Amino acid sequence: MEVRLPRLSRVAVCGGTHGNELSGVYLVRELLRTAPGAEAGGDASVQAVLSNPRATQLCRRYLDTDLNRCFTRAALNGPVSDAAPYEMTRARELDAQLGPKGSERAVDLVCDLHNSTSNMGLCVIAYSDCDWICLHIFRYLQRQMPNIPVRYIHFDLSDEESFSLDSVGKHGFALEIGPQPHGVVRSNIYTAMKEGLQHTLDWVRLFNSGTVFDGGPADVFTMAGHVDYPRDGDTRNITAAIHPHLQDRDFCLLLPEDPVFQTLSGQTLRYKGGEPLYPFFINECAYYEKGVALYLARKRSVTLPTLRVHKEGLPANFVSEKEEE
Amino acid sequence: MEVRLPRLSRVAVCGGTHGNELSGVYLVRELLRTAPGAEAGGDASVQAVLSNPRATQLCRRYLDTDLNRCFTRAALNGPVSDAAPYEMTRARELDAQLGPKGSERAVDLVCDLHNSTSNMGLCVIAYSDCDWICLHIFRYLQRQMPNIPVRYIHFDLSDEESFSLDSVGKHGFALEIGPQPHGVVRSNIYTAMKEGLQHTLDWVRLFNSGTVFDGGPADVFTMAGHVDYPRDGDTRNITAAIHPHLQDRDFCLLLPEDPVFQTLSGQTLRYKGGEPLYPFFINECAYYEKGVALYLARKRSVTLPTLRVHKEGLPANFVSEKEEE
Repeated sequence: MEVRLPRLSRVAVCGGTHGNELSGVYLVRELLRTAPGAEAGGDASVQAVLSNPRATQLCRRYLDTDLNRCFTRAALNGPVSDAAPYEMTRARELDAQLGPKGSERAVDLVCDLHNSTSNMGLCVIAYSDCDWICLHIFRYLQRQMPNIPVRYIHFDLSDEESFSLDSVGKHGFALEIGPQPHGVVRSNIYTAMKEGLQHTLDWVRLFNSGTVFDGGPADVFTMAGHVDYPRDGDTRNITAAIHPHLQDRDFCLLLPEDPVFQTLSGQTLRYKGGEPLYPFFINECAYYEKGVALYLARKRSVTLPTLRVHKEGLPANFVSEKEEE
Repeated sequence: MEVRLPRLSRVAVCGGTHGNELSGVYLVRELLRTAPGAEAGGDASVQAVLSNPRATQLCRRYLDTDLNRCFTRAALNGPVSDAAPYEMTRARELDAQLGPKGSERAVDLVCDLHNSTSNMGLCVIAYSDCDWICLHIFRYLQRQMPNIPVRYIHFDLSDEESFSLDSVGKHGFALEIGPQPHGVVRSNIYTAMKEGLQHTLDWVRLFNSGTVFDGGPADVFTMAGHVDYPRDGDTRNITAAIHPHLQDRDFCLLLPEDPVFQTLSGQTLRYKGGEPLYPFFINECAYYEKGVALYLARKRSVTLPTLRVHKEGLPANFVSEKEEE
């Protein structure tokens, strides 16, 4: 099967959507300083955006509410008051700048840079398991970056429900890299993010200039549920931490009766689910308040079609061998 | 040489002095829940204290100012206004409860629990290189905990200048363990802290009951300076991160011309000091705002005297072989 898709003319690279995820903050600052503009993505324009400047200034995830949960249709289109949280107002600004979400005017691709305290390696996180742009970029990253595990996470939500900044573009994904403590830059993580972004922009350039990307299989981790920490009934404080046998073992299959938590007094609590699943975002700092100790995913193989740009997307004088067949 | 010191009747175990250093927060909560009281330290009373409850509630280092810099003589004894930062007020409360600093009424030992994002292992951090209580506890921890590196850090400051909560006790130290991201509990770090504290209380019990602790050499790292990140002259944003060759290599000797930083554009910056020194607190999250990318220390060997409790500190019916010699 071959699919042809329109060229990607406008790409947005966003960082600091969470103000304490510093690889993305510093990478976007570096992009703004060096103004990559046209050449970075070939003939595509590349726009760097510091998404939450106020939270970045304070080195906090957010001021009033998590910006990266403010991009549902309902949140973007509902009534807005003067007392609205800063991030709600900022989400509308970003939607006006990069969207509007779901419209023809929206940028073609949003790549939103994130860090995690979990041992995530590099993840492409998207809402679709058939967005061939996102999936082909993922496969390209996997091949170009053999020294870091690269995975594709699929949150199966409709365009209506999708809540994150990357959902504003025609295509979009979060580029999530860890482990890195929030409020810290680690060179190895920063460099991996920089390379991941560069390969993404390389892919866009190759795609726009007519390169044919062969189809084939790719593994997709589809979110299937989550597990919260055991908590005290009154205080809601956690009463157990991730078990040392599970810590840092993101994307390693969790089997029934495997250790999941160790209580603060030292007792082991085991996985009581009946189905072996793949844990990820294990012990992510920001998810303590969201009631998530880890997510669980099913792994499936998706078959990517061969992909190339629409002929009308090519330069007028473009001739490729495959095109002439 | 033999030294005899008064028994340690009152011990304070503090956590949450920084509200996002969660091993200490959860360990103190566990102590408060299980009320170790008398038996934990033998006949010494053990008091658990959540030092900064408001910051802990918000999972932040502090609300207004760093509590663990509020215990200088000047800060504790200066005038206080209604507009004083919360932590200044809280510091006086803690000084009244556990001190007053420098007085006979002060508790005998403060053990203040801290976490670091740096690869610190377990450190005893104190203001003296001849506080034999702190140094003997350090040596005891080193022997009892062979699976984690245990080190002694000496900040050479007078009682006047010493700024941290542990300086309120007659003896005191910070028990610093890392790496752990702030806002996260890692089971291995929590367990190491719990064991470190248990061994500390065991040592107090042994000391109080007349055990003779042999003298001998111990390595001490005395703070000799610090290095800030390279920063932009206008924005003060950092322009380089810790070099990947230095990251996580706390307490490994740094030689002239060794890599220290990698700029955000990828350039290596080298150590220009003339003297080989031992770096520690490398890339600690909380020190970005303090202008500290790493501390540097000199390592020296200190000879500990043989230590035992004053005879009048012993139970009336106590007889030991060594006492009878």
